[in-house]
Formats: sequence, structure tokens, C-alpha cells
Amino acid sequence: MGGDFGPSHLVAGAIMALKEYPHIEKLFLVGDPPQIEAELKKHNFTDARIDIVHSTQVVDMSDKAWSAVRRKKDSSISRAVDLVKRGDADAVVSAGHTGAAVAACTIKLRTLEGVDRPGIAAVLPTETNVFVLIDAGANIDARPEHLLQYAIMGSVYSRHVLHYKNPTVGLISLGDEDVKGTEKTKEVFQMLKRTSLNFVGNIEGRHLFEDPVEVVVCDGFVGNVILKTCESIAVAIFTWLKHELMRSAKRKIGAFLAKNAFLEIKDKTNYEEYGGSPLLGVNGICIIAHGASTPLAIKNALRVAAESIEQQVNPHIVEEIRRYHEKAATLEPALT
Amino acid sequence: MGGDFGPSHLVAGAIMALKEYPHIEKLFLVGDPPQIEAELKKHNFTDARIDIVHSTQVVDMSDKAWSAVRRKKDSSISRAVDLVKRGDADAVVSAGHTGAAVAACTIKLRTLEGVDRPGIAAVLPTETNVFVLIDAGANIDARPEHLLQYAIMGSVYSRHVLHYKNPTVGLISLGDEDVKGTEKTKEVFQMLKRTSLNFVGNIEGRHLFEDPVEVVVCDGFVGNVILKTCESIAVAIFTWLKHELMRSAKRKIGAFLAKNAFLEIKDKTNYEEYGGSPLLGVNGICIIAHGASTPLAIKNALRVAAESIEQQVNPHIVEEIRRYHEKAATLEPALT
Repeated sequence: MGGDFGPSHLVAGAIMALKEYPHIEKLFLVGDPPQIEAELKKHNFTDARIDIVHSTQVVDMSDKAWSAVRRKKDSSISRAVDLVKRGDADAVVSAGHTGAAVAACTIKLRTLEGVDRPGIAAVLPTETNVFVLIDAGANIDARPEHLLQYAIMGSVYSRHVLHYKNPTVGLISLGDEDVKGTEKTKEVFQMLKRTSLNFVGNIEGRHLFEDPVEVVVCDGFVGNVILKTCESIAVAIFTWLKHELMRSAKRKIGAFLAKNAFLEIKDKTNYEEYGGSPLLGVNGICIIAHGASTPLAIKNALRVAAESIEQQVNPHIVEEIRRYHEKAATLEPALT
Repeated sequence: MGGDFGPSHLVAGAIMALKEYPHIEKLFLVGDPPQIEAELKKHNFTDARIDIVHSTQVVDMSDKAWSAVRRKKDSSISRAVDLVKRGDADAVVSAGHTGAAVAACTIKLRTLEGVDRPGIAAVLPTETNVFVLIDAGANIDARPEHLLQYAIMGSVYSRHVLHYKNPTVGLISLGDEDVKGTEKTKEVFQMLKRTSLNFVGNIEGRHLFEDPVEVVVCDGFVGNVILKTCESIAVAIFTWLKHELMRSAKRKIGAFLAKNAFLEIKDKTNYEEYGGSPLLGVNGICIIAHGASTPLAIKNALRVAAESIEQQVNPHIVEEIRRYHEKAATLEPALT
């Protein structure tokens, strides 16, 4: 029921996914049955794998995340997470209130062993590849140990889903040197240095796309600002360019001839292709889709959910964090 | 002596400014005289308005800001700020270590009456205009009252230098609603609502360029990340586009015909045109130029310095903050 367009884009995306991915065994559509059925009818689509689950409430964008989950017990996000909790579903995809999805998963599914707070891992494009930005907005008051856990979880996701062998990890700060940053980032820097992660040090916003690392670690406030700023400026540049290109006949012809170049870049900077961002660290798979998701974006979010299940992201996270603590325990006596 | 290119770009920019702005009465070049003289000689330039001031030390990028100012008493930034303190100069421009410039100004010039912490006001382009982002990195552990002061100072700069009549002010947060954000941003939201500023509420990164306000308020860590991310993604998009445009003869012809459109956008997103960012809130004018400043950027930074003096930015800031406190004092009894 969530997202800027309600069930219409969600159902259309679900239909695309069912057509394209035969290995989806069952797809629950959670919300108001008449609205969902009407959307299915629009597409003249029936599939035995679809199961409509009734819920009567919706979390509004103006609701406070945690209290909405506690008060609206019959909201679509709560009911969807319940399916994962009971083991009826392996993953949940939401385009609704991000905070409510995070709260519902944290309350109902709990965090994985060794993880204190879940983090959203957004995937962003560079010229030749992609990188993971974690946390993109789940946890806005992160403590140093949360950032350490994000680095580990982001590395696992990068390795097992994006197939980087030994992903480089960078910490967002205000300069390359370890003396720069806030008290918090300085503490995280020291913690990351002691892990077996491929930690390359502090990075600044200016390195994000020019000299990219494969996992970018920051707190949820900063990560969310980075994500939204990137979207905003990419859209702005293409809009300006379009207007400039339409200002003379000569430019229009040029734009026509070079059209494919623009389209390729536009695709690259289009979040729809990446579909959704996994909420890493909860005991289940949750994919956060963009509020303005198109059907294509929803289809890709369902693909990301399937990949996260198939690649066993969660067992790998638990294993990596266990290993980190073992190593830390061995080092501890030497440090004191 | 600062900046990625040392005296060469700085002296070249100073020469451009002296040629273009006859109302500059005197221009001090602070640093190592032989190096500065060699640069002047390269351009075969002499001007009675140039005064070379000797200093023997340079703050390195790896130095800690506050201790560098205390230890390196004869650094070029310290000597330059001394000129402002003594009233020999009205403004200082630096392309060196930003933190050291902030520290030197704060220690030597002190803050303006009513201002607790200075903030860097970066000017960023939108399609049709520009906006001020404050703080772009002076103060990474800002308290709510600092953000309030940034809003007031940013509005003054926007009104008197950028000539917006009644600049709109937005607070960077994670959603439009006042219930969203950290404890800090929620407190600032309430403070800003009670001012006579044209406060429009919370804004997200996605509004920065699509639905821009004229003054964007955030702490220095977030502001610095926004600034650097914007630079990085603009450069990345143009690089990708260039590579895509070179991939076929047809695209190359298209790119050639549409060349001026690209150049206009590139100029718009080019920080060189904006020159430098004023450090607002110190008792003197300080312009922070980009470390990679070209001579053109330095010339424009000197222009921004001249404008800040001419438009009486500092007296206006003092006046606005005084007015805010008077209003707050009148409201106080009603609130208790």
C-alpha cells in the first residue's frame, strides 16, 4: 500500500517480476484486497503464485516510525513483516515509510546475532561499476560500533551479491588523514584499522565517484543526505542540459545525433535499475524501495530480494561478525 | 602559500584581480618572498598596490588545525589574519588548510557579537540561480544555537550580497515533516520557527536542486559532505558523458554541434565562477577558496572579498542577531 503511487506501481512491478523470475514460488501482496484486485484486473493478470493478504491500515508519511508500528498493528508493512517472521515469506519489499519498515523489521524480526542496529545498504553507480553506501538512513544516531558493523555488513553484501572479491572500505569524513573528522569518525577509524576488512581510510564526498571505494560507511543521517543529494543533482544536471540543448536548432540536431550517449548515462544514474536497498542486520530479508518507485524499480527490488536470499547474505553476516569478535578477543590481551 | 598549487595560482589570480578591480587599494601577498617574486616575474607584472609580507612557515594538510595555528606562529595564514586584525587589510583570502584558516580567524579576530561559532557559506548553483549552504565545514560539532546563527548569517549574506529580497531558509533533515530528523534538527526546527526568517521547514537532499530554497542550513560535517558530493557527481557525470560521446562518429558530430550547451552547464557547475566561500561570523572578512583553485577562482575569491566588505556583511549580521535576541527577549515571558 506504500509508496508515492500506492498499489498501482507495486502490483505492476510484482507482475513484471512474476513473469521474469520463474523461481519466485509465492508472492504475497499485502493491503486492501479490492484495490489490489482492481490493479491485477487492469493488467488482466492471474498467477497461482499470488496470495493477497488482507490488512486494514497504512502508515502515513507523517507518522512517527516507531509509534506507527506499535499503534497500527494491522498496517500493510506490519502484516508483511509478520509473514517473514512466521517463515511464510523469505523477504519483504516496501516502498512506503522507510522508518516504519526499519522499525517493524527491528521489532518483529530482531537483529542478527552480533548486530546492534540494522543499516540500509544503497547501491550507487560509478562510471564502470557500483558501490555500497551504508547506512543510507535506517539509524540517524549511530554509535561507533554501529558503523563498524555497517562496514562488515556492507563488505559481506558487496562480496556475496555484487561479487567484489575483497571490497575496499572507506569511512566518510572531512579529509583523508586520520586526524580529521568528528570524535565519532576518529573512533570508528581506529576500530576499522584493527579489522581484517580492506579498509582504505577516510574518504571525502569528492572521492565518491572520482576515486571510488566499494563500501562507503557513514551514519544514517549523512548517508541519507548523500543519497538524496546525488539523486537531486543528477536530475538537475540532465534537466539543465535538456533545456540548453533545446535552445537552438543546431544544438537540437547535435542532441539528436548524440541521443544514445545521454540515454546510457541516464540509465546509469537511474535508481530504478538498482531497484531497492537491503536493510542489512535484521533477521530476515527486507528491501527498501524508493517511494517514487516505478514498476521497473519494484521488479528490480524483488530481484534484489531474491538475490539476497540465494546468496545467503544473513548467514554470511553472522559468520563475519562472529569472526571479528573472535579476532578482537585474541587481540584484547595484547592491547591491555 | 596554501592550496594544491602553492603560490603560482595564487599570484596569477591576484594579478588578474588587480587588473580587473581598480578599487582594490592594496593587495598583500603573504609567504616566502623569493617564491612570490619569481611568480610575479613570470607574469612580468609590477603594481604599486602589491605588498609582499614575509612569513617562514606553512600549515600542511596533515596538520591539526587548532594546534597548527598555535605552534606555527609565522605561518602564511597566521600572518595574513594578523594583517586583518591590525586593520592593515579588510579581508583575507586562503586556498590552504580550511581548518587552519577557520582556527586562525576565530582565535585572532574573534567572533562577531552574538555569534558563537563561525560558519562557511558556500554558494551553489541551481538552474536559474544560486543558493547558500551554511555551514560547509567550519564547525563539525555544531549545537542547535549555532545552526540558528547560521540561518541568520546565511540570510544576511543572501540578502546583501546575492540580493535576494526575503530569502527562504530550509533545514537539512530526513523528511519534510517536523517530526523527522535527529534530536538536534528537531530542536533547531522549533528555534527557526520562532524567528522572523523566511523559514520554510525541513528539506531533504533531493530538494536541493529540484525545489531549491535560498539558504540551506546544516552542520559543518553534513554541509561539507554535501558540497564535496555535489562536486564529485557533477565531475563524474561530465566525464561519463564525454566518454559516451566519443564512442561513435555520429555521437562525436552530435557533441560538436551541441558543444555550447555542454559548456554552459559546465560553467554553471564550475566552482571557479563562485570563487570562494565566506567564513561568516568572525570579526573580519575571510574567504575560503578551493584547494584546487585556478587563477580564475582566486580572482573571483578576491571579488567575493571585496563585495563582502562593500555590502557591509558583518555590521548587518551583528544587527540581525541583535534584533533576534530582542525579539526572543520579548517572547520569553509569554513562553514561560
